[in-house]
Amino acid sequence: MKIIVVETAGFAETGADGKAAQERIREIIKAHGCRLLGPNCSGVINTHVGNVQSIGLVEEVEKGNIGMTAQAGVYAAGILTGLRHVMNFGIVATIGNKMDISETDILEYLGSDDHIDVVAMYMEDVKSGRRFIDVASEVTKKKPVIALKGGRTAAGTKVVSSHTASLAGNDEINSAAFRQSGIIRARDNEHLFGLLKAFARQPLPRGDGILVITYTGSLGVAATDTLYLNGMRLAELEPELKERLKGILPDYVTSLNPVDYSFSMDAEQLRKTIELGIVSEDVGGLIVVLQGEILGSFVDTLRSIDYKGKPILSCVAVKEFMMEDVILMEKAGFPVYSTVEMAAEILADMYRYSLRKDRQAQA
Amino acid sequence: MKIIVVETAGFAETGADGKAAQERIREIIKAHGCRLLGPNCSGVINTHVGNVQSIGLVEEVEKGNIGMTAQAGVYAAGILTGLRHVMNFGIVATIGNKMDISETDILEYLGSDDHIDVVAMYMEDVKSGRRFIDVASEVTKKKPVIALKGGRTAAGTKVVSSHTASLAGNDEINSAAFRQSGIIRARDNEHLFGLLKAFARQPLPRGDGILVITYTGSLGVAATDTLYLNGMRLAELEPELKERLKGILPDYVTSLNPVDYSFSMDAEQLRKTIELGIVSEDVGGLIVVLQGEILGSFVDTLRSIDYKGKPILSCVAVKEFMMEDVILMEKAGFPVYSTVEMAAEILADMYRYSLRKDRQAQA
Repeated sequence: MKIIVVETAGFAETGADGKAAQERIREIIKAHGCRLLGPNCSGVINTHVGNVQSIGLVEEVEKGNIGMTAQAGVYAAGILTGLRHVMNFGIVATIGNKMDISETDILEYLGSDDHIDVVAMYMEDVKSGRRFIDVASEVTKKKPVIALKGGRTAAGTKVVSSHTASLAGNDEINSAAFRQSGIIRARDNEHLFGLLKAFARQPLPRGDGILVITYTGSLGVAATDTLYLNGMRLAELEPELKERLKGILPDYVTSLNPVDYSFSMDAEQLRKTIELGIVSEDVGGLIVVLQGEILGSFVDTLRSIDYKGKPILSCVAVKEFMMEDVILMEKAGFPVYSTVEMAAEILADMYRYSLRKDRQAQA
Repeated sequence: MKIIVVETAGFAETGADGKAAQERIREIIKAHGCRLLGPNCSGVINTHVGNVQSIGLVEEVEKGNIGMTAQAGVYAAGILTGLRHVMNFGIVATIGNKMDISETDILEYLGSDDHIDVVAMYMEDVKSGRRFIDVASEVTKKKPVIALKGGRTAAGTKVVSSHTASLAGNDEINSAAFRQSGIIRARDNEHLFGLLKAFARQPLPRGDGILVITYTGSLGVAATDTLYLNGMRLAELEPELKERLKGILPDYVTSLNPVDYSFSMDAEQLRKTIELGIVSEDVGGLIVVLQGEILGSFVDTLRSIDYKGKPILSCVAVKEFMMEDVILMEKAGFPVYSTVEMAAEILADMYRYSLRKDRQAQA
């Protein structure tokens, strides 16, 4: 199978002349029996086979388990510059005007590639809706698919058509299609990247009870609120674990979940508290709120713990000012979020996905 | 007036003994006719008078027009470390158990201090609700008040009471009180800081039409969606401005709003496009989506423009990896957001606030 990549713009997205030119390309590839990606795209990266089509950062991108498809090339290339520090991509494919190869084709391929554990889609329209739902329903049984959809309003849809020659469709129909096929919908890029990091690096929660460990009460409150607003809850430690935890904690710590160390948290306390949480039957996952100024002091300890399949997400408030240590944490496999709300919400998304997967495995 | 600051914890938030100790303090200050901040707080910073009570970063904090009150000291101290790079605080006051001085007292003071243009509140409960609404209603006539409220769920409320000895109350009542008094409610810390930066450094939009300038179509779509979802719209340039703009743009740019430079944007193009927007009667404010890798090349140009009272917010995707240039932008007065959705939403918040202020001025 021959595949041609056409990155040049100036086709269907520009009007009648461009549409005619695109049709001529279609006839040519048909006549020669090959497939085409684009036009108006930025090509493909596959880090596992060393393939680069123009999104030209591959020497700096490590092999990874995230697969991504984006309609717009500028989007994919732009974010890779930063994201390669905290996420490892296996495949990044841009589809542009998708005259021949569509988001559904890429999704199907990403679903079948064993290097890929989680799929991200930035999409502005869905072609051949029925097939998209069928393919997505199959892929989400095996791995999570997270989608960010542009063109939610009539005005946004109009903008979509002017830059990739496609119709964004009715957003309620899109939402229904996503729900039906088990796709997790991201609100915006931050949410998309936040979901990706967690699904790519952490196991799924096996229960809805969460242990929250914090150094500031206010973020313990925010974590609690967000967990409950998203159908999760604070875990209740078993009586003997409560006693053991009381023995570890300084006497001014009054709550056992969230455990609030009030500015005195050190790596050893954190390790002991996490290890109690791992032992507890009621703890399905953990959230740790870490102080950015001493973030580096926690990394080795966090890495040394056996989490026995329980996920741990961390929050570092205003993390953008401590990126050196945040990148250390991320490279050690611990997703770091700027808000504890995001960490709590994403744990809930992961838990819902695991429930759906279980139901499907039983069906 | 003598004011005592008690930072020590171990009072009403810890149980019966602590409550009794707090009551003894209350009697002592009553007998001596002085006021008390705390206990269980982290004191006050006032950069305009060089006053520091323990949130000990004052030599690194510049004088600024943001006033902030936080129940929890750890919260205020923790975030200051990072935020001082992009925000200038005038006053930061923590109230802790607020035995005597409450959030309402601080709010009233911040409302009257001419150094303060915008007020931020992190709160976990509201004491004396009626007086709070009265004071807040007066302050919001003069300056925006932005609040982040912890304890939205029953579970969150319970956590609140264990760390600052207060009851968080019914969240629907809180929401109603905020709406009634014109307080802008933040969803989380990111949203709070995002609102603060915009209100502290940019003028209010005087119309709902927004000009979006971008280097990637996908973020133009997202900006458009978010504007319309928040009651704003894309501005429609006057015919003669459209013609002038067409003369400036490369021929592959097909939409006049969002103006999408598809990766070729330079500072001079940006300046010319912004200046057209400033001239247009229909443009109430601007959003510029800038490429992080070349962000530094835009700063001087952006600073040289006369915006004639129109606000401009910028989006730099994955900005956390370009903080050096982001801080340059912020110090030049241009708020930078990681997502264009946040920029668009905040412009809408600012416009709604300006409408409310106008209505009140006419009443």
